[in-house]
Amino acid sequence: MKRIYMDHSATTPVAPEVLAAMLPYFGEKFGNASSLHRSGREAKEALEDSREKVAALLGARAEEIIFTSGGTESDNLALKGIARKNRKLGKHIITTQIEHPAILETCRALEKEGFEVTYLPVTGEGLVELSTLEASIRPDTILISVMHANNEVGTIQPLEEIGRLAAERDIYLHSDAVQSVGKIPVNVDDLGVDLLSLSAHKLYGPKGVGALYIRKGTKLESIIQGGGHERRLRSGTENISGIVGLARAAELAERDMPREAERLAGLRDRLAELVLGKVKDAWINGTMKKRLPGNLNFGFKYVEGESLLLFLDSKGICVSTGSACSSHKLEPSHVLMSLGLKAEECHGSLRITLGMSNTLDEVEYVAESIVEAVERFRGISALGR
Amino acid sequence: MKRIYMDHSATTPVAPEVLAAMLPYFGEKFGNASSLHRSGREAKEALEDSREKVAALLGARAEEIIFTSGGTESDNLALKGIARKNRKLGKHIITTQIEHPAILETCRALEKEGFEVTYLPVTGEGLVELSTLEASIRPDTILISVMHANNEVGTIQPLEEIGRLAAERDIYLHSDAVQSVGKIPVNVDDLGVDLLSLSAHKLYGPKGVGALYIRKGTKLESIIQGGGHERRLRSGTENISGIVGLARAAELAERDMPREAERLAGLRDRLAELVLGKVKDAWINGTMKKRLPGNLNFGFKYVEGESLLLFLDSKGICVSTGSACSSHKLEPSHVLMSLGLKAEECHGSLRITLGMSNTLDEVEYVAESIVEAVERFRGISALGR
Ligand SMILES: Cc1ncc(COP(=O)(O)O)c(C=O)c1O
Ligand SMILES: Cc1ncc(COP(=O)(O)O)c(C=O)c1O
Repeated sequence: MKRIYMDHSATTPVAPEVLAAMLPYFGEKFGNASSLHRSGREAKEALEDSREKVAALLGARAEEIIFTSGGTESDNLALKGIARKNRKLGKHIITTQIEHPAILETCRALEKEGFEVTYLPVTGEGLVELSTLEASIRPDTILISVMHANNEVGTIQPLEEIGRLAAERDIYLHSDAVQSVGKIPVNVDDLGVDLLSLSAHKLYGPKGVGALYIRKGTKLESIIQGGGHERRLRSGTENISGIVGLARAAELAERDMPREAERLAGLRDRLAELVLGKVKDAWINGTMKKRLPGNLNFGFKYVEGESLLLFLDSKGICVSTGSACSSHKLEPSHVLMSLGLKAEECHGSLRITLGMSNTLDEVEYVAESIVEAVERFRGISALGR
Repeated sequence: MKRIYMDHSATTPVAPEVLAAMLPYFGEKFGNASSLHRSGREAKEALEDSREKVAALLGARAEEIIFTSGGTESDNLALKGIARKNRKLGKHIITTQIEHPAILETCRALEKEGFEVTYLPVTGEGLVELSTLEASIRPDTILISVMHANNEVGTIQPLEEIGRLAAERDIYLHSDAVQSVGKIPVNVDDLGVDLLSLSAHKLYGPKGVGALYIRKGTKLESIIQGGGHERRLRSGTENISGIVGLARAAELAERDMPREAERLAGLRDRLAELVLGKVKDAWINGTMKKRLPGNLNFGFKYVEGESLLLFLDSKGICVSTGSACSSHKLEPSHVLMSLGLKAEECHGSLRITLGMSNTLDEVEYVAESIVEAVERFRGISALGR
């Protein structure tokens, strides 16, 4: 059975050009970037060249990029690194209720260390309100962390405005941009961020590698100590093949982004139209105005998202109900709850995230399949009509 | 120019069979192991299958293996995880002066958190003495961390005895086995360890992936929070291709170890013989009795190890002066200093670590080249004869 993959926010395949760039670094060019001999120098060159490329995608300088093992580690390093380093300046951190667990759970860990965290609510559209954010700032606020684009509903936060607000008050601003990098323009100066997390496997790069942008002059404590790699901020032999893959993925994203973003937004809108045109008591979670090009999050009354997912899976279609990491949990999505949905409305959600491989034909087939699935499950559900 | 790589303790090339095992997980089988659909299930199966294979190499159970981003992260997780979780039981940790920076720097970080660390001295041969270890144990000792094999001099510690000592006193025992796994037998029950770190790139697996063995029932705090992957001990989307590579490398190591260990020990002894037979004022650092099969660490009077390294590099030979991570530092090796060498003796050291690709021809050529290099530099050195 042909597989139709529409879960690109969970992960993406490694692009053939990315894999091709990586391959030499497993074999001939396998050196350790810390070694002084030519094998080591080769690795070191690849490392620094990759740093330039990743920096270029973000409008940053190479020396502002630190490579990590992924988005989760970048988020942990940013939050713990800034908090612990600036403990004496204040203990208050502001974030939002709709962050990824990599932020939320890190904040919980920081609370245990004595930090205080404000989790900002969002509007029904999934957006942070500037006035709410402003009102939550305290004299001892040291860090604001607001994600760029949400992984479940794809809404894009007004980071520029938040950046201005943070800068005026000399508060560090971090953004988890794992879902936006490579999909929409991300320029660290335009956004006004001091730190920004990204992950290769969300942009057709390999799993297990990511980066943290750290604005020049920003000091933080490391969370993994050792040989002092990555400007003493992240020890461990560098994953050269993975880093080279991330860099190539960054180049491809830069090259393809405008065209691909438009194409995906077109497919997305068509899919929404096809499904909402045929299914009653259905809606889109989150605003359609400020949204990632490839993201749709449907809400269906009287049906379980997980039943839909499994039915679609039986037809070779890969989608999700929320984020991948919470897929084995039974609680309703914390993101949808924050948007003001009732628990039973959350359970009827289906996330579809389009990517490079998807075509209009696939979108039409998936739309039909979703309609079929909803009708079938509503037919057999006591609550269905 | 043909390259002769004799720096296998710094890193190893990915074995062709390992790369072949990894390849499908970049492309067709690229799923996120947390996704419920078939792409996710495929990834999850690969993950759990890999866990079995890594466990098998160590004589452990699959559920006792946690995948990480490498040896450094494993060491950090083991030490911080146990220390922070057991803070109320005691604040004393015992380790050795010859550990890798991944242990030493983590201990320094723990000291800042209020823990007290004893750094045990070693004998001139590079071995921990049981009586010294025993004398350092306090009522509030919660953790002992002793590396299995040293990365500079290759000496193998008496872990079995240390394991018995720790078990009698109910103290957790961790071992950094990054240099021994895949080279000599490592069985967690024989060694009596509660935690053990390993890294794929030291055994012909990819960089950026490692594992931590955690004996069943051992509780620790995570250092990277997020989606709750790896039994909530290590969040972050799993690096499936890397993990599959580690697992395949573990299988190959198990298959080839006895034969390869014997072969390497033979090459090593031949290299030592050839060099020491021709060069005066030269010696081997660390005992030859309890030593990794592929490791040699020469000491040469009246010559700088770094000059030798660069000369050999110009002939296409890759070796190192100490560990890769300290190669850009100017201080003498902390390991050699602990063995009782004077600073100038440390500076004349050359580490040669043999591996899969090396042959007797290469060993003979390298021996000649080392003799030539030492003679040349002694000839132009004011101190040389
Ligand atoms: C918004 C967001 N932040 C962080 C992460 C974590 O990144 P990684 O999977 O590389 O650990 C993800 C994806 O899993 C994400 O969607
Ligand atoms: C003994 C020892 N421990 C830890 C490490 C760190 O492992 P990794 O390079 O995977 O971070 C190394 C090698 O660099 C090592 O030799």
